[in-house]
Amino acid sequence: MVTFLSGGTGTPKLLSGARRAAALDGATVIGNTGDDVELGGLLVCPDVDTVLYLLGDRLDRETWWGVDGDTAETHDEVLELTAAADEVPGPRYLDEDRQTSGRDLARWRRFSAVGEFMHIGDRDRAVHLARTSLIDAGHTLTEAIAWLGRALGTDVDVLPMSDDPVATLVQTPDGPIHFQEYWVARGGDVHIDDVAFRGASDARPTDAVLDALEEPVILGPSNPVTSIGPMLALSGIRKALEVTPVVAVSPFVEDRVFSGPAADLMAAVGDEPSTAGVAAAYPFVDAFVLDEADETELDRPVVRTDTTMTDEAAAERVFHACEDAMAAVA
Amino acid sequence: MVTFLSGGTGTPKLLSGARRAAALDGATVIGNTGDDVELGGLLVCPDVDTVLYLLGDRLDRETWWGVDGDTAETHDEVLELTAAADEVPGPRYLDEDRQTSGRDLARWRRFSAVGEFMHIGDRDRAVHLARTSLIDAGHTLTEAIAWLGRALGTDVDVLPMSDDPVATLVQTPDGPIHFQEYWVARGGDVHIDDVAFRGASDARPTDAVLDALEEPVILGPSNPVTSIGPMLALSGIRKALEVTPVVAVSPFVEDRVFSGPAADLMAAVGDEPSTAGVAAAYPFVDAFVLDEADETELDRPVVRTDTTMTDEAAAERVFHACEDAMAAVA
Repeated sequence: MVTFLSGGTGTPKLLSGARRAAALDGATVIGNTGDDVELGGLLVCPDVDTVLYLLGDRLDRETWWGVDGDTAETHDEVLELTAAADEVPGPRYLDEDRQTSGRDLARWRRFSAVGEFMHIGDRDRAVHLARTSLIDAGHTLTEAIAWLGRALGTDVDVLPMSDDPVATLVQTPDGPIHFQEYWVARGGDVHIDDVAFRGASDARPTDAVLDALEEPVILGPSNPVTSIGPMLALSGIRKALEVTPVVAVSPFVEDRVFSGPAADLMAAVGDEPSTAGVAAAYPFVDAFVLDEADETELDRPVVRTDTTMTDEAAAERVFHACEDAMAAVA
Repeated sequence: MVTFLSGGTGTPKLLSGARRAAALDGATVIGNTGDDVELGGLLVCPDVDTVLYLLGDRLDRETWWGVDGDTAETHDEVLELTAAADEVPGPRYLDEDRQTSGRDLARWRRFSAVGEFMHIGDRDRAVHLARTSLIDAGHTLTEAIAWLGRALGTDVDVLPMSDDPVATLVQTPDGPIHFQEYWVARGGDVHIDDVAFRGASDARPTDAVLDALEEPVILGPSNPVTSIGPMLALSGIRKALEVTPVVAVSPFVEDRVFSGPAADLMAAVGDEPSTAGVAAAYPFVDAFVLDEADETELDRPVVRTDTTMTDEAAAERVFHACEDAMAAVA
């Protein structure tokens, strides 16, 4: 039994390798929800959904988000209506007093569907509709995601890190923006001064998450700041990780990052954007998996392999390296 | 200048004839919103949308609702997810305490998207997304519908009867159900004891509606109970109709109804399901357009024509009969 902490790309790739190794029986995946947004009234959980779609065999493997072969009739029409009404495209936050009213979901992450800035496929949107309705009907996010896991035919427990809302905000010289505006709407082309997790001090990990953290834990090569960081900001998670054996795959080869905004974000929060910086940010990790070209010296056991996960066979190789690292410390 | 009061089928057909007669310059259409629902968090306005789609040249003329040629990827996927999660199809009202919380929209008309019981096309849903977002952003329903009218390229002012929520409920031996459950989910195959307009006593017609009712008014062959009834239940509308010249097209030929549930609904509220019953329910109507086969004797001027509107030419003929009737009383 093993528990994965997952963001939206690196760890899902590792999961695809673990599944190829038939090593997911009884496993649990805890997904970051700091990236979640309400878009047009619907709760979108990008990281959790990538895991659900992967395990439900419908993930778009080109993008590592969304449903393979999905159409976008609604999304295209929303943007056509937006343009036809002479509105500019782009994110539209709802007003401050509307950010937290009504549903017990929001923490500065509500956007209008007008100018819909995230590409939401039609079948993907069906998942957001069902999830939002389940929550509106009184279910917790954990229950809603379990419902979706059943509906999508996943065979692994997928848990949101919390039933409480957390919003990952990126501080820019012009004020805070939501992570999704930073990454999706602006392509990461924004100067970042800091990162904050609004709501994290009030949010609690669920009992299911704390139970799962009693098992050995694997952190895939996820972004330490915005994928794993929101989980570490929740009371009790860091302490649980200090007690259980934990293996992490570095998302860097020394100071070169595989993909995504991890380097910029680490620099913004004062961490060195490198494997050494990841190790410093993860004092609770007992062993690391590094790329074979990564000569970083660490104070903890290291297993080296080619950590590039171009396909499932490569991902399985990285997963086996995680098993080897875990065997050294568990 | 003329103002139409419209439900979802009869009056939109008449409007297609009026447009063919190039008689809609400066016209206003006031749409019933008693049939509106929130479905999966999105506000759906079936009657108003039929008018918007007609005037925006994208109405499905087979069904007289929805967008011509629309796909239904999201809808189909919601139902597949519902079935895959071992849930039965059909309407799911949100709990009583969730019917009116959060948005200032609801009056017992909120449904889950799980088991989505109305067929919502993908481009149709884009309209509901944009409308809901505009309202969530602080716009009134009137403003949201004007926005949609611009976006859809309509050339006629379309107004909701009110910015306040009204829900048309059908009283059955097993309790009240929403009109859309009665008509869409159950196909009208329900015994009806009564009809109520929840919220109507608190709802007000907008100033734009009251202004439009200073013009001559045409009531198409809409259902008097659930299409026109919700408007008449609003304070001030009946009085405005008593003052201005009003022409109505009977939705009956004597006691035979053209389509829809008008006969059952009229009987349920104690009106005779016939042209005579319509005339009795509409004391403010100054002249009627009846089918040429309808020999009902009325106490007001009558113009007779073939009122079957099988195509736009036929609808134009009925519109000209309305003009003749108006000329007799205005």
